[in-house]
Amino acid sequence: MSSEQKRHSGRGPRLAARTVGTPVTRVDAADKVTGRAVYVDDLSLPGMLHAALVFPGCAHAELKGIDGSKALSLPGVHAVLTASDVPGETQVGVIDADQPLLPHSRIRYSGDAVAIVVADSAAIARDAARDVRIDLSELPAVFDAEEALSPDAPRVHDGGNLLLHYKVRKGDVGSGFDDADIIVERTFRTHHQEHAYLEPLGALAVPEDGDTITVYGTMQCPFYVQKAVATVLGLPLASVRIVQTVTGGGFGGKEDAPSEICACAAVAAWKTRKPVKLVYTREEDFYRSSKRHPMTIAFKLGAKRDGTFTAAQIRVVADAGAYSTLTQVVAFRAAAHATGPYEIPNGHTDVLGVYTNRQTTGAFRGFGQPQVIFANESVVDEIAEALELDPIDIRLRNALEVGKSTATGQLLKESVGLKETLEAARDASRWDAKRRSFAENRSAWSAGKADDAKAASGTDDARAASGTNDARGAGGADDAAVARGAEATRHDAALLRGIGVASIYYGVSLGAKGLALDASGAHLNVYRDGSVRISVGGTEMGQGLLTVLSQIASDSLGVPIDRIHVGNADTSVVPDSGPSVASRTTLMTGNAIIDAAAKLRETMGAVAAEILEVDREKIAFSGDRVGFGSVTMPFTDLANECWRRNVRTSADGWYAAPETRFDENGQGDAYAVYSYATHVAEVTVDTGTGHVTLDRITAAHDVGRVLNPVTLEGQIQGGALQGASMALYEQMITDGERILTPDFSTYVLPTSMDVPEIAAVTVEAPYSLGPFGAKGIGETPAMPAAAAVANAVANATGIRVRELPIDPETIARALDGADTGKESP
Amino acid sequence: MSSEQKRHSGRGPRLAARTVGTPVTRVDAADKVTGRAVYVDDLSLPGMLHAALVFPGCAHAELKGIDGSKALSLPGVHAVLTASDVPGETQVGVIDADQPLLPHSRIRYSGDAVAIVVADSAAIARDAARDVRIDLSELPAVFDAEEALSPDAPRVHDGGNLLLHYKVRKGDVGSGFDDADIIVERTFRTHHQEHAYLEPLGALAVPEDGDTITVYGTMQCPFYVQKAVATVLGLPLASVRIVQTVTGGGFGGKEDAPSEICACAAVAAWKTRKPVKLVYTREEDFYRSSKRHPMTIAFKLGAKRDGTFTAAQIRVVADAGAYSTLTQVVAFRAAAHATGPYEIPNGHTDVLGVYTNRQTTGAFRGFGQPQVIFANESVVDEIAEALELDPIDIRLRNALEVGKSTATGQLLKESVGLKETLEAARDASRWDAKRRSFAENRSAWSAGKADDAKAASGTDDARAASGTNDARGAGGADDAAVARGAEATRHDAALLRGIGVASIYYGVSLGAKGLALDASGAHLNVYRDGSVRISVGGTEMGQGLLTVLSQIASDSLGVPIDRIHVGNADTSVVPDSGPSVASRTTLMTGNAIIDAAAKLRETMGAVAAEILEVDREKIAFSGDRVGFGSVTMPFTDLANECWRRNVRTSADGWYAAPETRFDENGQGDAYAVYSYATHVAEVTVDTGTGHVTLDRITAAHDVGRVLNPVTLEGQIQGGALQGASMALYEQMITDGERILTPDFSTYVLPTSMDVPEIAAVTVEAPYSLGPFGAKGIGETPAMPAAAAVANAVANATGIRVRELPIDPETIARALDGADTGKESP
Repeated sequence: MSSEQKRHSGRGPRLAARTVGTPVTRVDAADKVTGRAVYVDDLSLPGMLHAALVFPGCAHAELKGIDGSKALSLPGVHAVLTASDVPGETQVGVIDADQPLLPHSRIRYSGDAVAIVVADSAAIARDAARDVRIDLSELPAVFDAEEALSPDAPRVHDGGNLLLHYKVRKGDVGSGFDDADIIVERTFRTHHQEHAYLEPLGALAVPEDGDTITVYGTMQCPFYVQKAVATVLGLPLASVRIVQTVTGGGFGGKEDAPSEICACAAVAAWKTRKPVKLVYTREEDFYRSSKRHPMTIAFKLGAKRDGTFTAAQIRVVADAGAYSTLTQVVAFRAAAHATGPYEIPNGHTDVLGVYTNRQTTGAFRGFGQPQVIFANESVVDEIAEALELDPIDIRLRNALEVGKSTATGQLLKESVGLKETLEAARDASRWDAKRRSFAENRSAWSAGKADDAKAASGTDDARAASGTNDARGAGGADDAAVARGAEATRHDAALLRGIGVASIYYGVSLGAKGLALDASGAHLNVYRDGSVRISVGGTEMGQGLLTVLSQIASDSLGVPIDRIHVGNADTSVVPDSGPSVASRTTLMTGNAIIDAAAKLRETMGAVAAEILEVDREKIAFSGDRVGFGSVTMPFTDLANECWRRNVRTSADGWYAAPETRFDENGQGDAYAVYSYATHVAEVTVDTGTGHVTLDRITAAHDVGRVLNPVTLEGQIQGGALQGASMALYEQMITDGERILTPDFSTYVLPTSMDVPEIAAVTVEAPYSLGPFGAKGIGETPAMPAAAAVANAVANATGIRVRELPIDPETIARALDGADTGKESP
Repeated sequence: MSSEQKRHSGRGPRLAARTVGTPVTRVDAADKVTGRAVYVDDLSLPGMLHAALVFPGCAHAELKGIDGSKALSLPGVHAVLTASDVPGETQVGVIDADQPLLPHSRIRYSGDAVAIVVADSAAIARDAARDVRIDLSELPAVFDAEEALSPDAPRVHDGGNLLLHYKVRKGDVGSGFDDADIIVERTFRTHHQEHAYLEPLGALAVPEDGDTITVYGTMQCPFYVQKAVATVLGLPLASVRIVQTVTGGGFGGKEDAPSEICACAAVAAWKTRKPVKLVYTREEDFYRSSKRHPMTIAFKLGAKRDGTFTAAQIRVVADAGAYSTLTQVVAFRAAAHATGPYEIPNGHTDVLGVYTNRQTTGAFRGFGQPQVIFANESVVDEIAEALELDPIDIRLRNALEVGKSTATGQLLKESVGLKETLEAARDASRWDAKRRSFAENRSAWSAGKADDAKAASGTDDARAASGTNDARGAGGADDAAVARGAEATRHDAALLRGIGVASIYYGVSLGAKGLALDASGAHLNVYRDGSVRISVGGTEMGQGLLTVLSQIASDSLGVPIDRIHVGNADTSVVPDSGPSVASRTTLMTGNAIIDAAAKLRETMGAVAAEILEVDREKIAFSGDRVGFGSVTMPFTDLANECWRRNVRTSADGWYAAPETRFDENGQGDAYAVYSYATHVAEVTVDTGTGHVTLDRITAAHDVGRVLNPVTLEGQIQGGALQGASMALYEQMITDGERILTPDFSTYVLPTSMDVPEIAAVTVEAPYSLGPFGAKGIGETPAMPAAAAVANAVANATGIRVRELPIDPETIARALDGADTGKESP
């Protein structure tokens, strides 16, 4: 497709895009780097009280009573609130109301706060919380999802521990495997991943005059919060206003959890009739927020000798923790995408969501897919290896493209850029040359392994001397890496280099599982000086939404971006626009803006046509002018003229997703459109310490249309690192009752020193219903990296770790031939 | 017109009104009586600073320099800001930018603040303001509008003191007066009236992240404030958000003045990058807010022997004070309505607006009309008296009705209820019986005047004994008043009773002078639980707007009023809806709500039709159900179903006034529609002290359609009292430089003990374009009362005071035969 065709694909006016596609500076950048941005904890109001939660200190118990009298007697303490103080319903939950805001009689996990202490300061409230006496009778707990499925396991909920069982049934896997020349079946395990957003959860609830309340908070989904607050207070939704404050990161972690913290603050404010702030410490945030689902994935894949996949069978057991939160959606995504971005004629997938007494698990960038992709892409590589096929070649052979059908039997009709991402990643990473070079290195090392045992003990020094860390630098690092692969044999045989690939696809927006939420609104208000205020229901959480929406509005109205102001979400202004999740916000809200702008062009254009005496149909909006050919007027003059004539210059925009469907056999058009990506990861493994250094990620993405190359690059780099980090660094360790890594000194995150070069490469397969052709980018960068890293480690060492994280001990012991338990098939 | 016809007149759905027309309790009543309502001075933010203004202490001077160094050195003082600190334009003004926010080089009146002091507290700021040294060179000042017109008068502005001269020329007044059998020509003078709202002006400006600012304040016209703040800060309108806080009274006094105080707070906040609050003391408010224009009105009226008016000639000189503010609009209204609600074939009016060095004068309930009406209706009574005609009869003879034309040559086509108000006021006041009875009383008194001189000195005791004050009570007071008129002769000859009438008409909304502003928007958001949030640009200032709009929305959607929430105005949400003035807000905003509701009925109705399998055209919304006949569903279910189906349940509404016009001869359709009223006032005059007791006002109003009888009665009672108070109590006394009555202990207002029975009577002449047929009520109650009181005093005493207020000294001295100077023709 020519660039001109691309430009004119997708929704949006038939105008040359002036800001769309250009690296517009983030509209909120200056505030964030200068510290002027106002986060929820920056807010303060006169008479404001502070809340703290009372934690049970156990994971499963009968709650017999709560005695807040001692806490209440302390100076500065205003209230100790329990379940019986909740004015409305106590049961909350985004999808199923299976979670008590404050439990009446049962503790199901260590984050189940039993009471809210309200005091003059947060310190007083936390001190007093320790003096709330909880009368408990502990119950046996279950901390493993497979164990929880046993009939003898302690029951987390009365209905049993099986929350859900989703099935996808395409074709006949029996005959599919019969047709296979090779079958690989492996079991994989993943762990809790923490969102690790910079800003912890927080809320400020303010009772207003009238029976109304406003709650400010850090969040992705104000309309979820509105529903939760209305529910717990027993108010109509119109009486509950939710205002999103500047939000310091989300990654899915602020999809469900803000509903609870905001509802707690709201109850405290409602009972005390004062503004009440509740902000979690990092440790509290670890306990209360939902994590990425740990999964056990049994993956069986069959292929013909030429690499064509014939059948796949997958069983996933996902640990939902104590409450469902968004497990239903996560499980749906895992099921729908489990066989990867390949056309496989026969595929059966079962996903089981299971209650345990562990931390709740919920929305997390990628929605259950990174875990399954790790399994899927590992097995694909094992088959390629067995068949002596290049990993990229085997993927290209099976890759989805227009005219092929997904695991849910969905025929793809447009915007499938997967093969282009594979080719682009191959080129940009110099895949072929590196694979050759690294293989030589590895062969040499294997041959001389015994001799090198001594050298390996001095690896760190050797690495420093050879400048290996330079591989992370930009510029010439790439050539150096290829050269080093070859040189490693001579100078530092203990350093093995590897390269791995993984591909993914991702149904953009909510699809068949979330159809009721899958619309978005926008409200555009053109003032008489030609400046534009935009209200949307989508949220900026650091991803650059405000900038991209400003660009869309700018090109849709031909107004320079500095006269456009996009406000943060406020439920009193825009209709329910669903959640800001699932890479949907640019697509949905962008389209809503385009819709509203079209209405404005219609009404304002009619006035311009009259003034300019130009045919109304010919009027165009571009370059801050309105008209046709050389007969134009400034947009600002037109805005003023419309005002003078009482012509309305505001408009509501709306976009509803196309209908999707998904039957009980998991067949149907699960999503309207998919984004595609391929990551190539390069690593250096220290054979002495087992330490894996991430050298480079080449991240090729099909996003439909690049709206802003800089913010897009930021999304890709951040996501790729988050995905790689899931493979290499992060691990939430618990003893069931306590989280042993409840802060960033014990929960290991990559620092700036650990960040490799991440080369973002984009291909454009425009989506006809996307704003200017765009699809979505939020989730996809976080999805393939873990699998690519695991494949790179296997490529370097021959060791296939099937349980994350790939920690140095496992690698070192495996290299020594030990059974680590994490490589078992 | 039958009640059924009335019900179906005007805009709005063809549904039985369920809440419209009923006495729904004010939706904001509970908050106001319990103190929960949040006014601007209740707001506080962390780090907030406080501002105070520096006043010049003179009325006219050259400003040579300002030295804030001493003030700035005081502890707790953060800034002393002068004109050179204003980042954008310093010139402000609602219509003409003739007013500096802070003067650069010239002081034009004593309220011209020269600097803003910003400090930790308001007390520190005010203390420091006294230490700001102002280097002035005083200039001769002019404090009288007639004098200011002299060529030798000091010039307030370089362009001269004549701000404007509006003319209305209908017919040929020369021949009109030739046709007259009687001509009366008199000159009247009115004084500054203070709005005396309970809540003084106040603002809180908050710099937000980004180059944006939010200003909270007490105001009528957020969009005026937005423009002023954007102007002084040099920002696009989209970067300036104005939020109206609960507003404690306006009466026009919060139309223009909030722009200045909010702009001052905004400059202070912008320069300090902190939230800054500025709230006036009552005295500061007296200096800074604009007043009712003092006017000198020369009124000449000719009539035939049968009472038919043949010609009118009027010259009005209005004191604009130092800056124009809204003098243009006030003068326009005075000119357009000067000949009163009568068809007079020949009428010439000249209205001159003149700059002086006095307090600015601007918008005030009635917009220049109460002054002219006082003149007009006094002269009408003098003609009636000379022709021995009943005052109501002469008005009925000349009254406007459908098919007659106004002073601007506008042919009235509908909704003219003037005659009905005259008849209703006559009946409800028992006019005929009282006039007879009071006349007998007066005759007896006149006859025995000399004998009664002694008795008069004991009046108060006599009144107490005879229970005269009971006349203010409800119920039987009316009969007692008639009886007392007759009895007065015997028991307390020193108490004279009088009854007087006055009629008015009032062009609703902005008309030809304000066409650019004459549209309004509304945004309705139906949530999935069927509750409704409404955003409007109109403002609640105590008049009951939120209640009436809730009723309109309730009947337009068939949703109970307790699920409807109308928020206060916020410029970031709704398009410029013009000002909340001129009795326009119910009409304009109500229609915008009806427009939005119609769109919602369309989209939501289509869903209902599909679900219920009913013809879409038949679907009706009523009683919280939607459907046709017995096939209906709850509105709440429909809202949820729309949400589930991604059907948009928000809508923008818009209403633009019909086009009006007004040529340079003052001819044209000045306003789209008029409201009409007749007041009958009854007084008791103590012939000894001259004290006038207001006994009763019967206020008959044609409002098109009564939307809420209780809030309407409140508007009528408050307005009538404000009008009567202009006649009897209020008087702002100045020495030019200083206001000598800058508080409510020296500026006399009626107390609850002074409030007479005010009987509100309504007649309905529906307006086809009004919401459910309604026109407006805000201004009209304040318009006829002063004239009716003056006529009642004349009726009681034979003394015609032509300069307000009608104070006891004047009456007492005039009764003694002295020339008071206030009765001179």
